[in-house]
Amino acid sequence: MSLLVLKFGGTSVATVQAIENVADKVTTEIRKGHKVAVVVSAMAGVTNQLVSWCTEINQIFDPREYDAVVASGEQVTSGLLALALQKRGVPARSWQGWQVPVNTDLVHGKARIESIEGTKLRDSVLNGDVAVIAGFQGIAPDGRIATLGRGGSDTSAVAVAAALRADRCDIYTDVDGVYTADPRIVNRARKQIRISYEEMLELASVGAKVLQTRSVELAMKEKVPVQVLSSFGGGVGSDLSGTIVIEEDKILEQEVVSGVAHSRDEAKVTLRNLPDVPGVAARVFGPLAEAAINVDMIVQNVSPDFKNTDLTFTVPRADLSKTLLVLKDVGKELTGMGVESSADVAKISIVGIGMKSHVGVAQKMFTVLAEKGINIQVITTSEIKVSVLIAEEYTELAVRSLHTAYGLDHGDGKA
Amino acid sequence: MSLLVLKFGGTSVATVQAIENVADKVTTEIRKGHKVAVVVSAMAGVTNQLVSWCTEINQIFDPREYDAVVASGEQVTSGLLALALQKRGVPARSWQGWQVPVNTDLVHGKARIESIEGTKLRDSVLNGDVAVIAGFQGIAPDGRIATLGRGGSDTSAVAVAAALRADRCDIYTDVDGVYTADPRIVNRARKQIRISYEEMLELASVGAKVLQTRSVELAMKEKVPVQVLSSFGGGVGSDLSGTIVIEEDKILEQEVVSGVAHSRDEAKVTLRNLPDVPGVAARVFGPLAEAAINVDMIVQNVSPDFKNTDLTFTVPRADLSKTLLVLKDVGKELTGMGVESSADVAKISIVGIGMKSHVGVAQKMFTVLAEKGINIQVITTSEIKVSVLIAEEYTELAVRSLHTAYGLDHGDGKA
Repeated sequence: MSLLVLKFGGTSVATVQAIENVADKVTTEIRKGHKVAVVVSAMAGVTNQLVSWCTEINQIFDPREYDAVVASGEQVTSGLLALALQKRGVPARSWQGWQVPVNTDLVHGKARIESIEGTKLRDSVLNGDVAVIAGFQGIAPDGRIATLGRGGSDTSAVAVAAALRADRCDIYTDVDGVYTADPRIVNRARKQIRISYEEMLELASVGAKVLQTRSVELAMKEKVPVQVLSSFGGGVGSDLSGTIVIEEDKILEQEVVSGVAHSRDEAKVTLRNLPDVPGVAARVFGPLAEAAINVDMIVQNVSPDFKNTDLTFTVPRADLSKTLLVLKDVGKELTGMGVESSADVAKISIVGIGMKSHVGVAQKMFTVLAEKGINIQVITTSEIKVSVLIAEEYTELAVRSLHTAYGLDHGDGKA
Repeated sequence: MSLLVLKFGGTSVATVQAIENVADKVTTEIRKGHKVAVVVSAMAGVTNQLVSWCTEINQIFDPREYDAVVASGEQVTSGLLALALQKRGVPARSWQGWQVPVNTDLVHGKARIESIEGTKLRDSVLNGDVAVIAGFQGIAPDGRIATLGRGGSDTSAVAVAAALRADRCDIYTDVDGVYTADPRIVNRARKQIRISYEEMLELASVGAKVLQTRSVELAMKEKVPVQVLSSFGGGVGSDLSGTIVIEEDKILEQEVVSGVAHSRDEAKVTLRNLPDVPGVAARVFGPLAEAAINVDMIVQNVSPDFKNTDLTFTVPRADLSKTLLVLKDVGKELTGMGVESSADVAKISIVGIGMKSHVGVAQKMFTVLAEKGINIQVITTSEIKVSVLIAEEYTELAVRSLHTAYGLDHGDGKA
């Protein structure tokens, strides 16, 4: 007997028929003897409808009212799935965020879960009832409903799994696992069997949007094994071919590089002729942070005469025009500063736990790209990731070349 | 300054535009200096959609899950109306049933309100915030959402008005008041300015479905003045021409008969050759009560030989076939019993507080009907009501004749 948390997203519960299918999957786990809690999203499209009503009435809405309106979507799904389970003879009950309770902070609209009082829930689940929990929601210290922001149901599921001390959290989604690269670009990409939390986090941060980043952070902190698998594959039995996200030391055979990711959501900004004095970076990045612009890769060149410097960084492409507006103001103070920008860039990243103990991993990346005539504009590294910024038109070529070079192609290595 | 509770039904909040109109009405009351709480239903059609999802999944549904699903409709409306009020610069917040809390009994699906903890709500309203309360719902002793049954938002509104010690509860609906008869039948019907709780109750019980019966009972018990008025009439100012439902002793000039009501929802059943012994009525009506069939008018004739008796009663027309099934079983015990039934009947009622102190009121009814050649099949009376059962085809003739005979026609008397 295991205690499992299963999470189903909006497309998995989009219609009454889809909810019936989910009930079948859950019933299969119950018949195997497992104890199960389920976390559900709203029926696909419902949240968008609710959000559009809010914005239609009031563009600048009170997030507390937005939360009351939008959380109703998950409430509906939780009740309907409980009914579908009961029809199959499986005891089940719905739990709203405020009933568990899932306690959040006060940041309505994108609240963070602070704690889950799991005792009542765990008793109910161990007693044999399937707990069907409305995802994406909790109750704030003001006694009102709070939602967790888009994708928040992943985080709900992991938090519930932690509170229940579940053996595993299965996230059913519209992809069937985490791949070594985007299969639409690399047709020899392989589905990964196991991947570490750290790798998953780095992949999420570079655009592989399988799981909400916060859910991975929480899973890592709470040591919850998470499995990503498809809602639309065969029966539950065949679905164990998803990807398990797990602690690093439980992955016996660590690959040097476990995946190649890419992101086209970047734009590059270069500031020329900045005075090379202390505090200049703060005078640039302070206003950007205030404008809620998320600066990613940063490179500063030391000038030959130690008087002026160049600063290059990336921002989300959608924020480029806002960035340039902010920089116009900054330029009034830093006279002589020149601003260049480009949206035709892509970020290519290699990610792998094995990098920590291998040398030459980054060098190989640079060599492969050089051989293909791809110029590297910016480089950043972390312990388990190397990212480079290149011209966007080389994206596919770069991803495929690196995928082959690191032995990730299907048919290579242990795949 | 008055403290008002305004209630808006599903058609009044059917769309975002309709919600904006409701916000305008509420804003008008606020600008007059009133303190306001609003009780809202779900957007028209939403509850039906939610109910149909439940029954599609599971015909015999767990009412606790049904409640979780269905209550979401009012949750959405409450948040949206709060947003619309905020846009108008009117401070407002939504309250779900469990937040107030509105405490109900455990009868999920058609719960009764047991108490409302009004202190927090009243503080908020007196502080100037419009409280937008999700109607139709509360929280049961099991900590789960309970709904009040169809039309329950009327009861929510009256209960909130009582808890807030409001000066008046205005029920906005799709009729603009309570008439002396159905205006579709009697074109000289008058809108009543004031009517007593007792009269309203009797009218509701005979088919004038302006307010949910339970809401009138509660208003009477808690002495809450209720005004029925149209959501679709002119501005709030012009709407004071609704009907006020109020305590009897506040109605100075009591009319002998204040209205003529009719109901076509009746069916008549006659049992012949029943043994005239103690307990026979119990043996008939016991099984009907168990089958949840609501028996209304009952007449028992004493037999000339004191051995056998005839029993005539009415049941809701929709329950006639179920009634006949139950009586088949009863007939096995009461051998010789004959069963006759007819659905072609109508119940015509005259209602009026003044009847208590006037004689000859019923006699006049019988005379008028006799003059028109209408045969009376069954008669029942209460202190302020006389009802007769007649052949359905005479419904309009009977209502119009009585309306004229009691001086209710528009242009007569004080109208």
